[in-house]
Amino acid sequence: MGTSTGLALRRKGVEVYLEDVNAAYVEVAASRGAGSSKRPSDVAMVVVAVPPDHVGDVVVAALRDWPEAVVTDLSSIKAAPLATVRAADADAGRYVGSHPMAGSERTGPVAASEQLFDGRAWAVTPSEAADGHAVAQVRALAATCGATVVELGPDEHDEAVARVSHLPHVMASLAAAQLDGGPETHLALSGQGLRDVTRIAGGDPRLWRQILVGNATHLRTVLQRVRTDIDTMLAGLDGSTSDVVGVLERGVHGTKLIPGKHGSVEAGWGTVYVQVPDRPGELARLFADAGESDVNIEDLRIDHDPARPSGLVEVDVARDNVDVLVDALGQRGWRAHR
Amino acid sequence: MGTSTGLALRRKGVEVYLEDVNAAYVEVAASRGAGSSKRPSDVAMVVVAVPPDHVGDVVVAALRDWPEAVVTDLSSIKAAPLATVRAADADAGRYVGSHPMAGSERTGPVAASEQLFDGRAWAVTPSEAADGHAVAQVRALAATCGATVVELGPDEHDEAVARVSHLPHVMASLAAAQLDGGPETHLALSGQGLRDVTRIAGGDPRLWRQILVGNATHLRTVLQRVRTDIDTMLAGLDGSTSDVVGVLERGVHGTKLIPGKHGSVEAGWGTVYVQVPDRPGELARLFADAGESDVNIEDLRIDHDPARPSGLVEVDVARDNVDVLVDALGQRGWRAHR
Repeated sequence: MGTSTGLALRRKGVEVYLEDVNAAYVEVAASRGAGSSKRPSDVAMVVVAVPPDHVGDVVVAALRDWPEAVVTDLSSIKAAPLATVRAADADAGRYVGSHPMAGSERTGPVAASEQLFDGRAWAVTPSEAADGHAVAQVRALAATCGATVVELGPDEHDEAVARVSHLPHVMASLAAAQLDGGPETHLALSGQGLRDVTRIAGGDPRLWRQILVGNATHLRTVLQRVRTDIDTMLAGLDGSTSDVVGVLERGVHGTKLIPGKHGSVEAGWGTVYVQVPDRPGELARLFADAGESDVNIEDLRIDHDPARPSGLVEVDVARDNVDVLVDALGQRGWRAHR
Repeated sequence: MGTSTGLALRRKGVEVYLEDVNAAYVEVAASRGAGSSKRPSDVAMVVVAVPPDHVGDVVVAALRDWPEAVVTDLSSIKAAPLATVRAADADAGRYVGSHPMAGSERTGPVAASEQLFDGRAWAVTPSEAADGHAVAQVRALAATCGATVVELGPDEHDEAVARVSHLPHVMASLAAAQLDGGPETHLALSGQGLRDVTRIAGGDPRLWRQILVGNATHLRTVLQRVRTDIDTMLAGLDGSTSDVVGVLERGVHGTKLIPGKHGSVEAGWGTVYVQVPDRPGELARLFADAGESDVNIEDLRIDHDPARPSGLVEVDVARDNVDVLVDALGQRGWRAHR
């Protein structure tokens, strides 16, 4: 994350100085063009990108080492580092936390990219003590890196990510954990739904423990609500009046609140299913043929099963274009249906 | 599901007779070419496609109405209908349950497709009482419809789908349910992970309640295991020694057991990230350019955010081809990185 920030800033000509407890990381990051390893006499801003457990201490050290600089961090919890800054009686006016909603399961300077933040949300979370200049600087950092600024308070941020990021990770892990230890033959019945639900469960367990423990208060609240909902479902499994349908209905409603893909129904999208042989060039041919019908593809999914000679591709397009695309593809020899 | 089966069988020239409590459904299905509404004097096989709560009774009626026919059903639970057949003292030798692992949130004859089952798994679940002819016929039904047969016992099937299908649905619903009622501003921080985890939570709550209650025994077992794991996590959120990492590690391992997409790491895939402008023809151009580099695209995801002018496309290719593709796309003017 640190190297990606350096690369994104260098892209816009910003001068960047790199520091890490691991000198080899600085060397790799510098060789990739993320900045210089030569310490300057002063800096306008310090960006702290370290594992969650160390963020607070490193922010405090940065505020003391660079008494004129604005300091921010990129970690996924925002109240805990602020508390460390306050407890250390450091200059909280110059600290404004932030959190780019980007990243992948790969870490370190080799995996970094100057485009990592392009078009992503970047939360900027000033405390009440933050001064206006510091807030403006951190907003500018996010914008310079290509991201879209979302400003909210540190505690509100933590409450939000407990629901939209940390809980989903826990649920994916819990679903995937129940596959472990059972007969592998059961998995022959796996479908796309299982893959989607469990995809993010592959993240680093030690890093994620730090994140979850760091956001304990808000995560505990939502996880206890989940536990209550599970009890409702367990009670209803015998066919009793326990409100299983009510829990499921809240789920249906919840999916509709998510911007983007889940907006597909409201946005008036429909899906076209196409059989695509699993060899180079076939997807290119499909998109070229779709392109000739002047239909914009909003989203697509490939249900890839190694045991099958062809993949089923689900293409989302504007609902009005579903039949247009089915016909156009059919005329060009594709097996497509709505 | 019934209409899709009719269409898939008609595609291979099989004679199909259609029946439904709703005469309009038969009319629509027949007009789409799924079969005839004219009742024949006898049939070789009856395929029951009705909501879960009614499967057993309709199977029993079919065994009595058609005393020479093999009878199967397409529902997602297999022990319950068999129990109904046994309790009714019907001819269990001629009944072999089955369950195509296909379908979508859309139901009814209008949404049907002759290609719905192509390349999908189709569970065939004979009881010990089933005769060999009946098993062979139901296997042939699945194969004729284009599916891949997976044979296992009714109870083993129900145990398997509790883990790979019903629990994932519950977890997606529970994650999505926690979004309901909270501030919508929180959802500005939503990412692809949340969308993936909650996608299947949009299914019909009343239908899903029937499925979950119908598979109560096995689902209760896994849901209680989830509850135990949640208690482990709740206990560990205060930073105590409770084994949060252990639960997360079981999740990481679980994802690796899933065939297909999650095999990507073991299968030696890597990801290339590409910025694609959101207008018709751009994906076609991307795939044409990728095709010229002779790289087969194994999978891809579009992180579509309506607020952004361009989409970030994640393309999975063989690991050896990652750099080849990044270079090839870069040379053709794309913003692509690994």
